[in-house]
Amino acid sequence: MSYNLYDDPAFFAGYSQLARSREGLAGAPEWPTLRAMLPPLEGKRVLDLGCGFGAFSRWVRKMGASNVIGVDRSKKMLARARSLTRDSNVTFRIADIECLDLPPASVDLVYSSLVLHYIEDLMPVAAALRNALSDGGYLVLSVEHPVFTAPRDPNWQPGRDGCNVWPLTDYLSEGRRVTQWITSGVVKYHRTIASYANALIEHGFRITRVEEWAPNQKQIAEHPEWADEVHRPPFLLLSAQV
Amino acid sequence: MSYNLYDDPAFFAGYSQLARSREGLAGAPEWPTLRAMLPPLEGKRVLDLGCGFGAFSRWVRKMGASNVIGVDRSKKMLARARSLTRDSNVTFRIADIECLDLPPASVDLVYSSLVLHYIEDLMPVAAALRNALSDGGYLVLSVEHPVFTAPRDPNWQPGRDGCNVWPLTDYLSEGRRVTQWITSGVVKYHRTIASYANALIEHGFRITRVEEWAPNQKQIAEHPEWADEVHRPPFLLLSAQV
Repeated sequence: MSYNLYDDPAFFAGYSQLARSREGLAGAPEWPTLRAMLPPLEGKRVLDLGCGFGAFSRWVRKMGASNVIGVDRSKKMLARARSLTRDSNVTFRIADIECLDLPPASVDLVYSSLVLHYIEDLMPVAAALRNALSDGGYLVLSVEHPVFTAPRDPNWQPGRDGCNVWPLTDYLSEGRRVTQWITSGVVKYHRTIASYANALIEHGFRITRVEEWAPNQKQIAEHPEWADEVHRPPFLLLSAQV
Repeated sequence: MSYNLYDDPAFFAGYSQLARSREGLAGAPEWPTLRAMLPPLEGKRVLDLGCGFGAFSRWVRKMGASNVIGVDRSKKMLARARSLTRDSNVTFRIADIECLDLPPASVDLVYSSLVLHYIEDLMPVAAALRNALSDGGYLVLSVEHPVFTAPRDPNWQPGRDGCNVWPLTDYLSEGRRVTQWITSGVVKYHRTIASYANALIEHGFRITRVEEWAPNQKQIAEHPEWADEVHRPPFLLLSAQV
């Protein structure tokens, strides 16, 4: 099992305090948009890839999924997920996403929220997901948006008019980025929108929706600190079907 | 016919001096990438949307297309296109792209190079192209990349380390942008990558390839002034099939 940031005590403590950790799906402002990209859930066999505390796994079962497998590589996340879940049709497994070994056509929906930007090589993951999905199966995912992950200095700075600009650089230079988020030394992997899309297309996925999410006016009114996000979407959301 | 920038004498004179005007396809550095996205051309009925001087129209006929219709709304561009073309299976028409009236299933390939960012509303254009394409037909297009068209001040500026950054702002604010390119007051329309993709998907296109083009190392060696382009791709290239 590879090193996992989410098992680091300081990171885990900080992450546990985020709205999306304390409040589950309701604490994730992009959730309504991501939810709208889901297919009908009744009877679906679901893989929750990077399940964290299992909020989606529990929700999707309540919405009619027949069974759910939540996968994460953080022991601490899975321990909490298990402690919060009383449902024999929701199971949690510890695994590296890069080393998934899933039976062919064993899943009808793969969901992955804000996980795949931690993966260095998307191609074997796309291949494994395609193989695990039944024909007609669905993939719904979110990642940090490539314009968010690209810059060598990912911090707002004043533009020539004094208002904030996002200092985009290195967009075409894919690969490792080391940033500060909750703790220092957080490693993620930048890739372009084209690379996300083509990895799916090359593995037989048909892209059905693309969303570049930023908070809406109502959300900004409740969180004025989010106002700049409309200048640079923080999240990319994709849905696809095989 | 709407006002056309390309009929403005000063703009036309300046545009005619660009490498892509003087040298045709060979003068467009993104052409090899766009060319690789084309389907087999033999026997295809082709629509060249925003054909300019007709370089692609003539090339695609030489590559085996059965007939080509080049459409542009600039009288001056079309006059030069006609003067350069001696082929009764290549015809040029003056038309606004927004008002295309094409017979159903009359075209097998639509090609559109650096034109659709001048169009305010992509949805009726996507509908008209879907209708004009035969089943299994292809669309290959390039536009100015949304991170290029978005900013209120689309000019490189120094980052906190003194090196150039692209000051991304207003990405989620779609609509009219007035910029300087050859002349001042050039009007184009910013939309997100999601909007380009979803307009196609909603009209029955299956996206087959996404490219975010920037010059490669060989091109930068020949044009050192292009070095910063890798920080912010200037062009978005899409291929799709119906």
